[in-house]
Amino acid sequence: MNLKINGLDDLDIQILEILIKDSRTPYLEIARKCHVSGGTIHVRMKKMEDMGIIQGTKLILDNTKLGYDVCCFIGIFLDKASSFTHVLSQLDKIKEVVELHYTTGEYSIFMKVICKSISDLQDLLMNKIQIIPEIQRTDTFISLSQPIERNIQL
Amino acid sequence: MNLKINGLDDLDIQILEILIKDSRTPYLEIARKCHVSGGTIHVRMKKMEDMGIIQGTKLILDNTKLGYDVCCFIGIFLDKASSFTHVLSQLDKIKEVVELHYTTGEYSIFMKVICKSISDLQDLLMNKIQIIPEIQRTDTFISLSQPIERNIQL
Amino acid sequence: MNLKINGLDDLDIQILEILIKDSRTPYLEIARKCHVSGGTIHVRMKKMEDMGIIQGTKLILDNTKLGYDVCCFIGIFLDKASSFTHVLSQLDKIKEVVELHYTTGEYSIFMKVICKSISDLQDLLMNKIQIIPEIQRTDTFISLSQPIERNIQL
Amino acid sequence: MNLKINGLDDLDIQILEILIKDSRTPYLEIARKCHVSGGTIHVRMKKMEDMGIIQGTKLILDNTKLGYDVCCFIGIFLDKASSFTHVLSQLDKIKEVVELHYTTGEYSIFMKVICKSISDLQDLLMNKIQIIPEIQRTDTFISLSQPIERNIQL
Amino acid sequence: MNLKINGLDDLDIQILEILIKDSRTPYLEIARKCHVSGGTIHVRMKKMEDMGIIQGTKLILDNTKLGYDVCCFIGIFLDKASSFTHVLSQLDKIKEVVELHYTTGEYSIFMKVICKSISDLQDLLMNKIQIIPEIQRTDTFISLSQPIERNIQL
Amino acid sequence: MNLKINGLDDLDIQILEILIKDSRTPYLEIARKCHVSGGTIHVRMKKMEDMGIIQGTKLILDNTKLGYDVCCFIGIFLDKASSFTHVLSQLDKIKEVVELHYTTGEYSIFMKVICKSISDLQDLLMNKIQIIPEIQRTDTFISLSQPIERNIQL
Amino acid sequence: MNLKINGLDDLDIQILEILIKDSRTPYLEIARKCHVSGGTIHVRMKKMEDMGIIQGTKLILDNTKLGYDVCCFIGIFLDKASSFTHVLSQLDKIKEVVELHYTTGEYSIFMKVICKSISDLQDLLMNKIQIIPEIQRTDTFISLSQPIERNIQL
Amino acid sequence: MNLKINGLDDLDIQILEILIKDSRTPYLEIARKCHVSGGTIHVRMKKMEDMGIIQGTKLILDNTKLGYDVCCFIGIFLDKASSFTHVLSQLDKIKEVVELHYTTGEYSIFMKVICKSISDLQDLLMNKIQIIPEIQRTDTFISLSQPIERNIQL
Repeated sequence: MNLKINGLDDLDIQILEILIKDSRTPYLEIARKCHVSGGTIHVRMKKMEDMGIIQGTKLILDNTKLGYDVCCFIGIFLDKASSFTHVLSQLDKIKEVVELHYTTGEYSIFMKVICKSISDLQDLLMNKIQIIPEIQRTDTFISLSQPIERNIQL
Repeated sequence: MNLKINGLDDLDIQILEILIKDSRTPYLEIARKCHVSGGTIHVRMKKMEDMGIIQGTKLILDNTKLGYDVCCFIGIFLDKASSFTHVLSQLDKIKEVVELHYTTGEYSIFMKVICKSISDLQDLLMNKIQIIPEIQRTDTFISLSQPIERNIQL
Repeated sequence: MNLKINGLDDLDIQILEILIKDSRTPYLEIARKCHVSGGTIHVRMKKMEDMGIIQGTKLILDNTKLGYDVCCFIGIFLDKASSFTHVLSQLDKIKEVVELHYTTGEYSIFMKVICKSISDLQDLLMNKIQIIPEIQRTDTFISLSQPIERNIQL
Repeated sequence: MNLKINGLDDLDIQILEILIKDSRTPYLEIARKCHVSGGTIHVRMKKMEDMGIIQGTKLILDNTKLGYDVCCFIGIFLDKASSFTHVLSQLDKIKEVVELHYTTGEYSIFMKVICKSISDLQDLLMNKIQIIPEIQRTDTFISLSQPIERNIQL
Repeated sequence: MNLKINGLDDLDIQILEILIKDSRTPYLEIARKCHVSGGTIHVRMKKMEDMGIIQGTKLILDNTKLGYDVCCFIGIFLDKASSFTHVLSQLDKIKEVVELHYTTGEYSIFMKVICKSISDLQDLLMNKIQIIPEIQRTDTFISLSQPIERNIQL
Repeated sequence: MNLKINGLDDLDIQILEILIKDSRTPYLEIARKCHVSGGTIHVRMKKMEDMGIIQGTKLILDNTKLGYDVCCFIGIFLDKASSFTHVLSQLDKIKEVVELHYTTGEYSIFMKVICKSISDLQDLLMNKIQIIPEIQRTDTFISLSQPIERNIQL
Repeated sequence: MNLKINGLDDLDIQILEILIKDSRTPYLEIARKCHVSGGTIHVRMKKMEDMGIIQGTKLILDNTKLGYDVCCFIGIFLDKASSFTHVLSQLDKIKEVVELHYTTGEYSIFMKVICKSISDLQDLLMNKIQIIPEIQRTDTFISLSQPIERNIQL
Repeated sequence: MNLKINGLDDLDIQILEILIKDSRTPYLEIARKCHVSGGTIHVRMKKMEDMGIIQGTKLILDNTKLGYDVCCFIGIFLDKASSFTHVLSQLDKIKEVVELHYTTGEYSIFMKVICKSISDLQDLLMNKIQIIPEIQRTDTFISLSQPIERNIQL
């Protein structure tokens, strides 16, 4: 690891590396691997949570096996740039929107959407997204396959 | 929950919902919430892991606090479409690439990249990505802020 | 044929294949080819019509010989995405519009139009399509030749 | 009908109009509607087939019910414009390609493709279309719904 | 000449060819070249003018030597397609606009403009074209050199 | 006239203005309108021809009446920018190319083409333009109507 | 130096060349290099300042070392072209805007912006630029490195 | 001034502010304004030069008055992204290139060019830039006016 982060020592980073690989690793196993006590792990975890470095854990699910076949990216053009905040609050209510970015480039808003099928996507676009009057047009591109998905490595 | 998934009953889905909210919830707590024994939870988890529905867990980190300030999307144009497989294997070696999609739309490859700084991004583009000779050009847009990041809700 | 369709057996599919090649084949000839009675063909046709699989037949005409020289695709940008339903109802009244799609990608509406001449197309665009006030602009590309037109093969 | 086509009289056009509505209408029924003999219908049909005006009939199928869920348009950019003829012969072998146009506008080739699913489309693009080395890149947009499909009306 | 135009005979076309090369050729010289009388030339010219085939003549000037250094093409995007007629009447008043087309493709209006200098072009765009409120934006590209300018050859 | 051109006096400009309106005006009529002798007009015309200001005259024809129905603009993308000179010499041989510009903006070459029909345009693009191997792709947009065509006014 | 500028002689140009290399060169040193008196240099400098040729001098700073890490170009699309003057006066108040151009091409306004960080840029775009209601959207591209920055050489 | 730069105190910044306004201000005048000795100014200037914060000064010239009428931006597309370094070394030899950036967005290289006239720009593009064989195409947009040019304000 070639990165020296403010306020983190080697033990903190070793703990992070173990949890990045498997976030369900029990504290006692982390402790054994790091040659420290379980209490030390608890202290360090609390510190990194208090610092906001660790924000929680997330289940990695096979969306397709849960019936969510379509993953797509949607770029949104607004009627005017100043509509951003209002449109964001509307899009936030749509559960299929799993990521939303404010980006450089031609789109005012860029988001990742997961839904069940092509006809589900049509319903989503037509009846939930495009009825927001400040949205001028959308540009959708569908992920046909996703050979890489992983965390950053410290 | 309005979705009936093949081979999953209400208990399975209740377990998933608890873990989607907090993937570190101990099995005993899940068991108590679902009014079943801890053993039952183990059996169901094993089933859903065997089915490939649950693929693991992932730490949610504040990338900025770890020194990774720049999150961007890179669209790649290849010299010819048939170079895809070869270029994929090269990009797979670059650790900053955290997602890679094969999408409809104008890009041959579309990926999400996380790196430390603008100069880190320049180094990445110039010395790791654009030296791959089959890449004709890239189109990068930077995420200035990301107000939404979440899992699909069952 | 490598496709197993719900509710269809081999005979149904054999009938479909014969009709895909020539939709005017008399039932008795279909019956003879399939080694069943004409009555059986009637029963099966009725079933597939009731299931909505067969929706009718369509004459294949040489549009050029009927004086329709220009086949083009028109992508439509709306003033705002929510105008879709209203504009659709206006475009539906224009007989030259033979296909209309709601697509991913940059266009709000994408349609196929057949008309008699360049000056006919100008009249159509200017006096029928672009007077719809919710249409911001159109992007027309003309088919110069169409070397392939055919049905899907089961 | 406001169109006077070379070599067609009112009876010919009346016959066409009946068949455009339902191409399976028996000749005797056409004859009765037109107040002529069945033999006259046969003569006229033969004439219009010999003139190449009527090229056949086509079954109208509900592709979705046959398991073909995805209808899309694919624009193709070639490595150089002169590769057109060669690439056309390769694409002609792919049964999912149901229309192929040579158009004005930015694409070298523009085609309509029908396939069973998103993963089918991925396979088609990656393993059948994009392995043609003269194809530089493709631009795919998916039809989410198609509210209009009809013949031209004379 | 491989073109047979309705109502024109070989003599008409010979006359046109001479005038296309030099529209100031005196009628007597045309007559001598065609081995007919000057009166015949007058009759034929009158006929072609009456038919509207010949609409006049135009001086070919070296615009640069007259101080018109900048030749450019301007594509115009309107606020909505239905503003075309109104905007056309405004643009018609601008003398620098020497050609104006209604075209397929992304522009609502496409025109050729000749003016004296870059600063003249700026004044034209800012104070004459872009103050028309129905014009959303313009896309200007400047001709750096024009190696070909000629009439069609019969 | 608000323009003072090097070496031209008011008489020269008055002559130009008369000829811009009608390039066939006889010298004696020009002389009478300008209150000078016919000889003076000859001297001035010769001077302006020697200066290269007047380069000739051009017949204004109704292309449509001569059977040339299609006027279009074609933007050309080259395989590499340095192919310009070679491709220019190839395009110069195609008589349908009536204007060719080297422009700023995305096209390497931008030209105006006049031909007889859509199928003529297809032949031109496929068999004359796109067989030039250095041409990567072309972007064609068709003029549907041309409400303005005129000379600059001094 | 191959350029003959109105009203400048060789000495003026020699002075300019020295100052272009180092604008802080003392007048006496310039005088010595040019083999004239210091007074002559003062006279010439005053003349070139009065002519408006020399407008001042500018410190060349390392923006990165001053904490300005992000240099970017922003293209602006207006709601309508006629909003230019009003939007310009708003953008003029934003100190991070160091260059602003009115250009040919697709953008209504094109500007160069220097700010401290990605989050600074986000704040700038969202809270200073995009709240101007006449701005429809912006297109930002970030300079990752700038290997060339220099004056024109006479 | 709301910025605290590493290693700079209030005096350093005061000096910078004076020089940003007028880089020719004599050290003694700076000293008087800052209420310190001239020697102190020398020490501070030397420190900021050694730190690389001050890199020199630059004459602000009226390019138009020097005969440089055309300021433009040129985006360059390369045959492949890996040609960057080689093409950069070629472009560096062209004196009209005053800024060159490696940017996110669609261009491989983005540069600012100043030249004397449209015909100068044509010569530059055709004979100096586009003959570099690795350049596929260029996209040029011309600055018609530049209402803002200034330094960042601390």
